Amino acid sequence: MTAYEMLSENAALVEDALKQYIVQQGSLTQALTDAMRYSVLDGGKRVRPTLTMECCHICGGESKKALPFACGVEMIHSYSLIHDDLPCMDNDLMRRGKPSTHAKYGEATALLAGDALLTLAFEVLCDPINPLEASVEAVRELSRAAGYQGMVGGQIIDLESENKSVDAQTLRAMHAGKTGALIAAAASLGVIAARGNKIQLEACRQYALHLGLMFQITDDILDATVDSSALGKTAGKDLKQHKSTYVTLYGLKEARKMAEKQTNLAIEALHPFGQKGQQLADLAHLLCNRNQ
Amino acid sequence: MTAYEMLSENAALVEDALKQYIVQQGSLTQALTDAMRYSVLDGGKRVRPTLTMECCHICGGESKKALPFACGVEMIHSYSLIHDDLPCMDNDLMRRGKPSTHAKYGEATALLAGDALLTLAFEVLCDPINPLEASVEAVRELSRAAGYQGMVGGQIIDLESENKSVDAQTLRAMHAGKTGALIAAAASLGVIAARGNKIQLEACRQYALHLGLMFQITDDILDATVDSSALGKTAGKDLKQHKSTYVTLYGLKEARKMAEKQTNLAIEALHPFGQKGQQLADLAHLLCNRNQ
Repeated sequence: MTAYEMLSENAALVEDALKQYIVQQGSLTQALTDAMRYSVLDGGKRVRPTLTMECCHICGGESKKALPFACGVEMIHSYSLIHDDLPCMDNDLMRRGKPSTHAKYGEATALLAGDALLTLAFEVLCDPINPLEASVEAVRELSRAAGYQGMVGGQIIDLESENKSVDAQTLRAMHAGKTGALIAAAASLGVIAARGNKIQLEACRQYALHLGLMFQITDDILDATVDSSALGKTAGKDLKQHKSTYVTLYGLKEARKMAEKQTNLAIEALHPFGQKGQQLADLAHLLCNRNQ
Repeated sequence: MTAYEMLSENAALVEDALKQYIVQQGSLTQALTDAMRYSVLDGGKRVRPTLTMECCHICGGESKKALPFACGVEMIHSYSLIHDDLPCMDNDLMRRGKPSTHAKYGEATALLAGDALLTLAFEVLCDPINPLEASVEAVRELSRAAGYQGMVGGQIIDLESENKSVDAQTLRAMHAGKTGALIAAAASLGVIAARGNKIQLEACRQYALHLGLMFQITDDILDATVDSSALGKTAGKDLKQHKSTYVTLYGLKEARKMAEKQTNLAIEALHPFGQKGQQLADLAHLLCNRNQ
């Protein structure tokens, strides 16, 4: 199986499971469930849930146990995009080639759909298919990664850094929070679902941290080099908002080198898994060479 | 101990614990932790966490086991107030007698502080002081109550009902979600912390559901009869926004009767606890007769 096939297969599994978790409750709340489904279904590369599924797999776990965790991670990711697109944040009307959630459903409904997805993520982690210990570890890991010491912390650094040039250390801290923490948690949750050991946990986390950094650098490169229609979201945004990125800080050529280095480090981290790690290694190459 | 003393004592315990949970991480994210602390500390009557603490107590549990659950509930309540006050929602500049969070810290930071408190709530529920089973039950209960089938669901009904008159059934569904679900969860979490039995759980939930409805009716009465400075938040808001309330739907006199009836039903539900339920009964009277 190629990395692309692995992504597609897991995306289909996650899509089905997400549909089951968001149940229409009646006409009074239909706008809310519509907006939740609009945001979380049928979009994105599903990189994070694929990490959860595949890290579970290479640790010898069953995929059905990783599935609720993968859905929880994707709900957190979706909520963060909804809130990030809001007028008081990035004010972005386009996401994944279609109107962003507030552009389609209005600001208030989008805000609430984000809140609801964030909340639902934790309910889903407690799916009884997993033992209590795994659920509690997953809730701890995901809440830490997504919260003020992780993703939301990265968002506030981003916000405070707008319209000023920041140093490499701040940029790194921002991305470690904004994207790195959730990607690392996605991998950890796969290991937790498999009840993997400490060596496996550390290897998967290292892989994910390097992958996450590479992903961010590549994002910055794409923002600077590809137009909006090809990207499926607003391009050139960073430059327009005077944001410091890996491209503005290091230049395009150096940024490309950095992305490649992180790809190699990610692949090296998979060493303990031997041949089993091949698809995750391929995934790293695939994401480094993506064009959207 | 009077109900007022019980509220004060629990408020102090919860205040201390909340401070411990929100740790300053360094200068880069200081705006975020400041806004979180501003929103969650030193404010409110702490009715919900008191319910958690006291329901644990009357079920024979230790208060230190209920404390993380009480804090989780209060974080959810605080986040909901922050997001509810945002310009795209109620656009309210005043809360608990001081500027609302976005009025003080700006919209984006307020949005993120709300997200961070919501996320932290679930981490706190997994405090290792409680057995795994209790934590998982608490996460399930609180996420369901706070999510699209509960509190956020009630918010969207509220939103969709703006500027039109709604029927009694819709008003009831709105409040069951907006306030009832979280108040009932607050009580349930106390029973869960005490590892109470089904009869205790049902009694505490019934008490809380009636208390919650009474609380909402009283809120509507206060909004229509007390001025902003006495209320500590913007008064007359419902009328100005053409919202249907228990007062607009039934009139002031009938609304007062309904509040009293719910108070009595709340107290009746405490029957299985005998004399132990006295303080919660007093609390119901206190809240029914409050003036802010």
